[in-house]
Amino acid sequence: MVKKEEEEGTVHLSYDVLEHFTADVFMKLGVPPDDADVCAEVLSYADRRGISSHGVNRLKPFYYDRIRKGQQSADAEMSIVRDGPTTAVIDGRFGMGFPVGKRSMQLAIDKAKKYGMGMVAVRNSTHYGAAGYYATMAAASGMLGITGTNARPSVAPTFGTEAMLGTNPFTIAFPTDEEFPFVLDCATSIWQRGKIEYYAREGRQVPEGLVIGEDGSTLTDSSEILKALITGKAALLPLGGPGEDTAGYKGYGYSTVVEVLSSALQGGPFLKAITGVNVGHFFMAVDISSFTTMDEFERSAGEVMRQLRGSRKAHGYGRIYTAGEKEHIHMVSTRERGAPINVSLQGEILTMRDEMGLIKYKFPFEKKT
Amino acid sequence: MVKKEEEEGTVHLSYDVLEHFTADVFMKLGVPPDDADVCAEVLSYADRRGISSHGVNRLKPFYYDRIRKGQQSADAEMSIVRDGPTTAVIDGRFGMGFPVGKRSMQLAIDKAKKYGMGMVAVRNSTHYGAAGYYATMAAASGMLGITGTNARPSVAPTFGTEAMLGTNPFTIAFPTDEEFPFVLDCATSIWQRGKIEYYAREGRQVPEGLVIGEDGSTLTDSSEILKALITGKAALLPLGGPGEDTAGYKGYGYSTVVEVLSSALQGGPFLKAITGVNVGHFFMAVDISSFTTMDEFERSAGEVMRQLRGSRKAHGYGRIYTAGEKEHIHMVSTRERGAPINVSLQGEILTMRDEMGLIKYKFPFEKKT
Repeated sequence: MVKKEEEEGTVHLSYDVLEHFTADVFMKLGVPPDDADVCAEVLSYADRRGISSHGVNRLKPFYYDRIRKGQQSADAEMSIVRDGPTTAVIDGRFGMGFPVGKRSMQLAIDKAKKYGMGMVAVRNSTHYGAAGYYATMAAASGMLGITGTNARPSVAPTFGTEAMLGTNPFTIAFPTDEEFPFVLDCATSIWQRGKIEYYAREGRQVPEGLVIGEDGSTLTDSSEILKALITGKAALLPLGGPGEDTAGYKGYGYSTVVEVLSSALQGGPFLKAITGVNVGHFFMAVDISSFTTMDEFERSAGEVMRQLRGSRKAHGYGRIYTAGEKEHIHMVSTRERGAPINVSLQGEILTMRDEMGLIKYKFPFEKKT
Repeated sequence: MVKKEEEEGTVHLSYDVLEHFTADVFMKLGVPPDDADVCAEVLSYADRRGISSHGVNRLKPFYYDRIRKGQQSADAEMSIVRDGPTTAVIDGRFGMGFPVGKRSMQLAIDKAKKYGMGMVAVRNSTHYGAAGYYATMAAASGMLGITGTNARPSVAPTFGTEAMLGTNPFTIAFPTDEEFPFVLDCATSIWQRGKIEYYAREGRQVPEGLVIGEDGSTLTDSSEILKALITGKAALLPLGGPGEDTAGYKGYGYSTVVEVLSSALQGGPFLKAITGVNVGHFFMAVDISSFTTMDEFERSAGEVMRQLRGSRKAHGYGRIYTAGEKEHIHMVSTRERGAPINVSLQGEILTMRDEMGLIKYKFPFEKKT
């Protein structure tokens, strides 16, 4: 989801500066230099595409704080537990999820280059950021890329009200003949917590049918929902909505698929045993040139996109998008302006800079002394 | 979707008798005996599980009539166009989609047994029935099974109103330690045409947000919708609903993935070029024992199902299901009673019997002479 939030006091910062700063923060935390670059690259991938829920906004609460508290390791070395011609199981040893994810998808791609397909299952990992990054790696290598991850429970099954499943993204990418790939990077729930936080900040009500209360009623007060999510008295609903009338059992089903592929293949924990620093992922790559020429595939796939966009629009809508298009437009259109840094994030950035002694960084939003 | 329709005049018929009759009809139409058995088996798979939209109800309109009109071939032999260690492209030559589907999934399974993974893309095929049949084949072989197919356009993209995509199922199965596998067999649209036909017969309104009119307004009159779907003045909506508020772009995205994997990999047609007798499919198998022991996988996957079912229920709901469970319950509970054959289907069965000279079949619903 590309979000446009420009709160009062927001300052823009070059994506490159932000990415370098992020890498330096990770290095100061003890992440090896190459891994720190990957961590920063994946967070920056999200920021550049307007997926601010998965970018530098998470640097302090999700990574900086957790590493400093010892909840996840800065320099654990992943190990390959099992290796076959097209398959592998990797133990992330509770290290940084980004480099674990990047190496795992690269391994799947390498296997697919040799045999046509590759799949890697990872256990004992941590948040790997925007899933689209890894699927896009495969697309850039001429592959169909698929990835998913489980996450702390926040979603209720159909007819249930208890948070059992994570927002479990099921993410798919492939190349086309256009200047950006098809990337469907989305949670299998309708909304994610981050969007409700955004509504709460704006004082807006959440539409009906997105969040369920303890008794099964729908909740709409965004601030109350955030509290209830923490106390276990609310849960997000799977794609398709409550009950079966609008096919919520389908989103629930896809979420269950992601949960199982992120745990049962690799002997990892699942559902309520997930704390956020013991997650599993899976990565799949399929070599397109094993089926047809890249040119033919890309032309057909691109033609599907163009015909979809060119079809009749609903009244009041001037444009139909395909998956990954809005994010590409955001990346191109904000390349010069840079990333929006709101007041709260400005504070976090200055705190991390000062605590890590990264005195070479001066930011436009700091008080002149 | 398991539907319970017991119209007036409905008679029950043994599933085995119905399956034998179906095989004999296909044979009389010129389908080779082994293929005819497969055709009957896949239709019966759907009937036994209560997926009546994909069972013998379709025998006359979808297969019998089309073969007799020369729209699809009864005895075309599929050919392998391209073959690699884990991948293959198959040309169905406009023959029966069921045996093409079964052989293609078997080929994917055989490749996965050898290399860990297998994927087969099929072009120039015809309706292959319930996608769950093929995914379940993989699950029964200790595999993760994935399959999808494109279909005649009936679904509009997000912000569009023109039927561009098929109901494009994205179907996934795997084994568990329970007596039935996990099978998520569903269209990537909210509803299918068959469900609207059912509502029209019952004189019921379709809920808001499932069908979109030419201008983008929601349509609810089920009889009017059926007419408008034919004239192109209505379209079904993707899983997630209209617009972006409830994440309809996700269902639209998954539908696009199925469309591309059913066409671009195999050089087949897509979107509005699909007439229903020139569809493409894909089949994927992943060998679970390449990752872990079958016992461990099945126990974990089964435990996920049990924990989901055991979680807190919404007020008024006594039970939470997992994918494939309702269909399994239907199969077990109707095994003795047999398939419900309504008056309209009784007429079709008698017509086919008489036209094909299958005089050995006597049905409880025919007039005594």
